[in-house]
Amino acid sequence: MKPFLTLLTATLALSGLASAADLKIYPYDGAHVLAGQRFDLRVEAGSVKGAGDATVTLDGQPVGNLVRSSAGDGKAEWTLRGTSLPSGNHTLQVTFKDDSGTSTAQAAWTADAPTTGPAKKVILFIGDGMGWNTVRAAELIAKGYNPANGMPRGRLAMEEGLGGMATVTTSSYDSFLADSANTASSIASGQKIAVNALNVYPDNTPDTLDNPRIETITEILKRTRGAGVGLVTNAYGADATPAAFGAHTFKRGDYAAIVDQYFKGAASPDVLLMGGSRDFIPQSAPGSRRKDNTDWITDSQKLGFTLATTRAELNAAKGSKLLGLFNYDNLNYYLDRAQYQDPKVLGDFKDQPYLWEMTQKAVATLDQNPNGYFLMVEGGLIDKAEHPLDWQRGVFDVLELDKAVAWAKDYARTHPDTLVLVTADHAHSISTFGGYDTTMGAGNREAVGTYQDAKFPTYGDKLDANGIPMVNTPRTLAVGFAATPDYCETFVSRSVFKDPSVSDGQGGYVPNPDICGETGAYFRIGNLPKSANQGVHTADPLPLFAFGAGAGNFMGLMDQTDIFFQIARAMGVDATKTK
Amino acid sequence: MKPFLTLLTATLALSGLASAADLKIYPYDGAHVLAGQRFDLRVEAGSVKGAGDATVTLDGQPVGNLVRSSAGDGKAEWTLRGTSLPSGNHTLQVTFKDDSGTSTAQAAWTADAPTTGPAKKVILFIGDGMGWNTVRAAELIAKGYNPANGMPRGRLAMEEGLGGMATVTTSSYDSFLADSANTASSIASGQKIAVNALNVYPDNTPDTLDNPRIETITEILKRTRGAGVGLVTNAYGADATPAAFGAHTFKRGDYAAIVDQYFKGAASPDVLLMGGSRDFIPQSAPGSRRKDNTDWITDSQKLGFTLATTRAELNAAKGSKLLGLFNYDNLNYYLDRAQYQDPKVLGDFKDQPYLWEMTQKAVATLDQNPNGYFLMVEGGLIDKAEHPLDWQRGVFDVLELDKAVAWAKDYARTHPDTLVLVTADHAHSISTFGGYDTTMGAGNREAVGTYQDAKFPTYGDKLDANGIPMVNTPRTLAVGFAATPDYCETFVSRSVFKDPSVSDGQGGYVPNPDICGETGAYFRIGNLPKSANQGVHTADPLPLFAFGAGAGNFMGLMDQTDIFFQIARAMGVDATKTK
Repeated sequence: MKPFLTLLTATLALSGLASAADLKIYPYDGAHVLAGQRFDLRVEAGSVKGAGDATVTLDGQPVGNLVRSSAGDGKAEWTLRGTSLPSGNHTLQVTFKDDSGTSTAQAAWTADAPTTGPAKKVILFIGDGMGWNTVRAAELIAKGYNPANGMPRGRLAMEEGLGGMATVTTSSYDSFLADSANTASSIASGQKIAVNALNVYPDNTPDTLDNPRIETITEILKRTRGAGVGLVTNAYGADATPAAFGAHTFKRGDYAAIVDQYFKGAASPDVLLMGGSRDFIPQSAPGSRRKDNTDWITDSQKLGFTLATTRAELNAAKGSKLLGLFNYDNLNYYLDRAQYQDPKVLGDFKDQPYLWEMTQKAVATLDQNPNGYFLMVEGGLIDKAEHPLDWQRGVFDVLELDKAVAWAKDYARTHPDTLVLVTADHAHSISTFGGYDTTMGAGNREAVGTYQDAKFPTYGDKLDANGIPMVNTPRTLAVGFAATPDYCETFVSRSVFKDPSVSDGQGGYVPNPDICGETGAYFRIGNLPKSANQGVHTADPLPLFAFGAGAGNFMGLMDQTDIFFQIARAMGVDATKTK
Repeated sequence: MKPFLTLLTATLALSGLASAADLKIYPYDGAHVLAGQRFDLRVEAGSVKGAGDATVTLDGQPVGNLVRSSAGDGKAEWTLRGTSLPSGNHTLQVTFKDDSGTSTAQAAWTADAPTTGPAKKVILFIGDGMGWNTVRAAELIAKGYNPANGMPRGRLAMEEGLGGMATVTTSSYDSFLADSANTASSIASGQKIAVNALNVYPDNTPDTLDNPRIETITEILKRTRGAGVGLVTNAYGADATPAAFGAHTFKRGDYAAIVDQYFKGAASPDVLLMGGSRDFIPQSAPGSRRKDNTDWITDSQKLGFTLATTRAELNAAKGSKLLGLFNYDNLNYYLDRAQYQDPKVLGDFKDQPYLWEMTQKAVATLDQNPNGYFLMVEGGLIDKAEHPLDWQRGVFDVLELDKAVAWAKDYARTHPDTLVLVTADHAHSISTFGGYDTTMGAGNREAVGTYQDAKFPTYGDKLDANGIPMVNTPRTLAVGFAATPDYCETFVSRSVFKDPSVSDGQGGYVPNPDICGETGAYFRIGNLPKSANQGVHTADPLPLFAFGAGAGNFMGLMDQTDIFFQIARAMGVDATKTK
């Protein structure tokens, strides 16, 4: 049959039929999956004249059970949900005939054979927005250099005693830049995903929840091993990074549907420790963001979950399933919880757990499952602070994450079937370019020291109760962002967070007058579109640090989708089997 | 004697004698060297009352042959040049007595034992200013993503087929930030060096050429093996990076002295291919920067060097020693040589070699030496363009460097005793944060696309004669710098380079009116001191890529000084032996 199809294609090309149907295939041409990894196959035809009909073959054999849907004039679609491939290279061939003639399209796919691997447990730390430069700023604050000779005083826990290390680059299905939804999805499912989408391919319907899905590592482990799954974040729980390990949607803003999938979907996490209670409570409850009466606080307990809403409750919690909701939105930044401790900022949430406490409790809970587990722990506030250019809050959140990593490394030493990974989803445009002499006041460009005038920062002269340096010290880092909206610069940390810009009431943004009115603050024109109210993600590279079982699989330059395949390899995943 | 010294120290501390002499020891406390690596030991006393005298012991034994110099009131110094340590941990103890009492100081040193290692030849590429983000921008231009699915289209040559990879962090003896002199020195000699200094420790004299020296890898290989040494750069030849592998001075601006050391010093390179002829020609010659009548063009030929001043002469050159001087200052940027090719810009230098041609000729020349070689190849113009915020010229110079790396990797495959390293000396504050639609004009913030609006750049639609994408294409990267002086932004590449700022005649700088007058250009207030006329080096981390013999020694997080020790290990250097 192949020569015939080839001939047809050639004929079409020669006749230059502008009216030939426009064909799309998902998974996309060039997709890479695990053998047995489930996905929804979808073929779409656009610019269809008449009814039209398609012949779909996989490696030359007709594909059965395709369901045709009728989505309106000029369109036709065929869907086969929950299918998979045996290992090897495959070609899907589509021949579509309608009143305007015949069109063809094909997609080449590769499915990796199952492997064996030493890891039974995985703790994956994702520092949201934690590119190489962000980690470096954190290291400079936590460790820095001996002022007597310029020699390093050490590394972060995440940087030391490595079993593997890689630099990771990111991209999206539809752009070379990325957001947290599609990047976390690339880690979770090995696919390039459209910006703002979670583990689904595009389709031609407005419904964001019916898109063709791809199975995630958490779902595969649940299905093939009955493994435990845990999602931990200090951001709101329906946010993109945790959602990528527990949900499927074309729109990351489908918060209620994401939370519903946590309890009803295939990943079905056993441990959920996070902020964002507003997406778990019925619309009637104060602060709810839901548009229905679903009450996961109550219903989760029927499913066997223990509820914790404070650090004390978390530390006391027992049971094999755990739901912790510690704030109605994001938890507060580390600096607000541990150093500034302003009662007005913390409000009703005076007893929020640290990320390292959530990590420990999650592991203790998941460890009850003899089939191993996959735990994703997000330092979710790094990105939340980098967006509004508050580098201090962002970088100190790396230090909170690092204490959780230190604990996990210790755990992995006594649990040698554990793989610990630390990476990021994307970077920000942050850079440490000098020192700042705060004794010369805020917003003072002449207080910026570069080269030898940068000298050595004085972080570490005073530590907080967790052993982390106090943010306010005479000589700080001077840190900037390469991509900004219009904003006012002060160089110093403020005790109460402020957004860099506010709406101008006409669709644009202007610098926040509350900041511009601070002593020394000065106005800087940005380089982002005027519709931008904050900094943006960048294409800059990310670190990946690996420890323990299978850590050696992570090295060199990695595309972010490779992380999924190397986790599968480290764990010896066989997605062709269902337990 | 130790208990007595300890007691004395305690007594001094208790009595709090503010007038006790101030002691300094070089190498500094905490220094790490190779066993047999030569250095100048220097002890300095300041705030001396009367004549004073010192007892200096190493591991409890008196140090002989110390020469006392008399530098003026209140000072005393002792120097022992060209000494070295056996392997192991050592302590230098200084007891100084003067009219105000007794002071003590000590320095702990570690000397690594000789090793065996597989590499006989080393090609070290240094991309000046080539941090992770700069490499990434180059990769995005050269390879990028398939617009059909967002999948990567490949990596740079420097990123592929790795035998080792590390992330490197930098610092200086006197600051956590760095310049190219002290960072290249850290690679060359394994020491933390003061900003602007080359392979020397500080001292208390104004003479910048008499400072205590530390032996470099090139000197060690020459001394212990009779190995060949080559220095290649497209910057001026007396610039900091090449100078770090051939000279010693406390001031990188000692250009004439640096060039003199190339011919008369202990590293004595056999191959010098570079710009900067003005530092090689007598003061009487037009364009000379020398203040003497030394003429290295003539004198080098007496030393056996063949001279080349054009690409054609370089390619035709034979002989075992080669001096190539291809411009009176830096060579022109890659974009100017290969794409813009403006005759006014290139002036008299119409036939400058590419970095890959210089690399090939250097290797062919050095390969005549049966004792192996150390070749340093600098992509020196990356930094030169990043300073004035011309990211396009900087990033395209990475692509020129990458073609040289590709050639060296091929060479190493057929010469398996070769180690190829690619790293940087320091980073700049560069970040790729979006796409730019040049069809919307220059300086247009609304033409910046972020997230999904960044789409995919169109580099690669047209290639230059070297197979490198044309810089001008409809959709480019949007790239910024986190640390800038006041300047005018246009987002686009200009065919003739312009400095971002010009002197205001009062010690400060203002944006270059030539740029601000361009269509669309708009003014941006900076965040560097007003004395800054350009961007600055950052503390951000750098890549190191390793190939071939001993490449596995380079992994994880490395302090820049570690590169020296790992090169020594890969080569099996025994600095205790002199050939």
